[in-house]
Amino acid sequence: MKRVLIIGIGAGDPGHLTLQAAAAIAGTDVFFLLDKGAEKEDLIRLRREIIDAHARDPHRTVQVTDPERDRTSPAYTEAVADWRSRRADVYAGLISDELRENETGAFLVWGDPALYDSTIAIVEEVAARGVAFDYEVIPGISSVSALAARHRTSLTRVARPVRITTGRRLAGDLEGADDVVVMLDAHCAFAETPQAADAEIFWGAYVGTADEILISGRVRDVADEIKRARADARARKGWVMDSYLLRRPAR
Amino acid sequence: MKRVLIIGIGAGDPGHLTLQAAAAIAGTDVFFLLDKGAEKEDLIRLRREIIDAHARDPHRTVQVTDPERDRTSPAYTEAVADWRSRRADVYAGLISDELRENETGAFLVWGDPALYDSTIAIVEEVAARGVAFDYEVIPGISSVSALAARHRTSLTRVARPVRITTGRRLAGDLEGADDVVVMLDAHCAFAETPQAADAEIFWGAYVGTADEILISGRVRDVADEIKRARADARARKGWVMDSYLLRRPAR
Repeated sequence: MKRVLIIGIGAGDPGHLTLQAAAAIAGTDVFFLLDKGAEKEDLIRLRREIIDAHARDPHRTVQVTDPERDRTSPAYTEAVADWRSRRADVYAGLISDELRENETGAFLVWGDPALYDSTIAIVEEVAARGVAFDYEVIPGISSVSALAARHRTSLTRVARPVRITTGRRLAGDLEGADDVVVMLDAHCAFAETPQAADAEIFWGAYVGTADEILISGRVRDVADEIKRARADARARKGWVMDSYLLRRPAR
Repeated sequence: MKRVLIIGIGAGDPGHLTLQAAAAIAGTDVFFLLDKGAEKEDLIRLRREIIDAHARDPHRTVQVTDPERDRTSPAYTEAVADWRSRRADVYAGLISDELRENETGAFLVWGDPALYDSTIAIVEEVAARGVAFDYEVIPGISSVSALAARHRTSLTRVARPVRITTGRRLAGDLEGADDVVVMLDAHCAFAETPQAADAEIFWGAYVGTADEILISGRVRDVADEIKRARADARARKGWVMDSYLLRRPAR
């Protein structure tokens, strides 16, 4: 049987790798590297460093171009579903053609494979198409955990919930919630959402890396500073990955 | 200056430890072990194994009894606040008396210090009392990440949010939410909450350990099986730590 591992490798700091993930990498015959375009070159390099540090000798790497999502489509969910299906074609090819019987292949996923990552769903889709393999998921430090740790704050208050959501949904998901983590926010929704103005924000970009930027304070006081820092960093590096926690006074 | 580390050590599998956490343990002079009573002996043993595997020679350990929470009080938040303050007394004593200048002391926290753990808040309270030290938080694999990985499922669907909450709040937090993670549920709220009956549940106890139990399915089909498995395990081991994801069809 072929074996596929979906390995969470943490949020950007090579030290986020777990011992379990390091052992899984050491047990991998083939690494599937999905090139997502020039803007993520830093991440590809960091992933290669992790492989170099932990993989066994010999191992193979197969690099392919990950299909791009149609970012012009207004139908976000449908565009992502179509993108996922095209990615499944690519992943099915990798597992069918590049992985031999009794070998282990691995996809290395930034953060935690359970949070806003589609690798599990894509691999499930490949399995549903009848490609024969076993697979396993290894959890990783999410960018949310890394953000909270670097700000030395908790995501949850005593006996209270936390919501994890996207920039697009922030206004709605702030309703009735006092602790909200936002990922995938390209438009600084915190600054455009009146209900967020009095919240405390704990914002971070490139968390855990040498480029890390951390800003916290009341949204009304620091929103402009965050927007500026984010735009500057994006211009300098060509890409930005950020997330934030909003915390309102408990009612 | 004294240095205090709050180190997330993962959800029960020693392999959850990150390289960063292992290095932090190797750099620690004094480990503060808080004995929470007989029911958690397995966890104390596992923590000692982690220290034995990664700490430097020599190192010190200081074991104290963590004050107990008044579980008879109906005022949950106040009881927890009082408990926190008594714990701060204990932690302040440890940092003042057991940690010398320029030494590093560490609290090892199960899961991720950012999720339903009060160590950060207690250490903040100690600092606010004027005890002089620096501190740092090292993220860990949360039981939520471990649960999702073992069930090979994602916590989030495309562009959709997830809520993390407690058993006590489940009924309210299911309003308007399709993906809800529940922690700290001693009363199997999923089985008592009518709105949950049609949800899919991904339940796990002792996730990542040799005692791991995983059950998934529709709540109405597996609720009794989970309640039985949970009660049996609790009777056998004297304690149980479990969590679950509820997923309803996307509206």
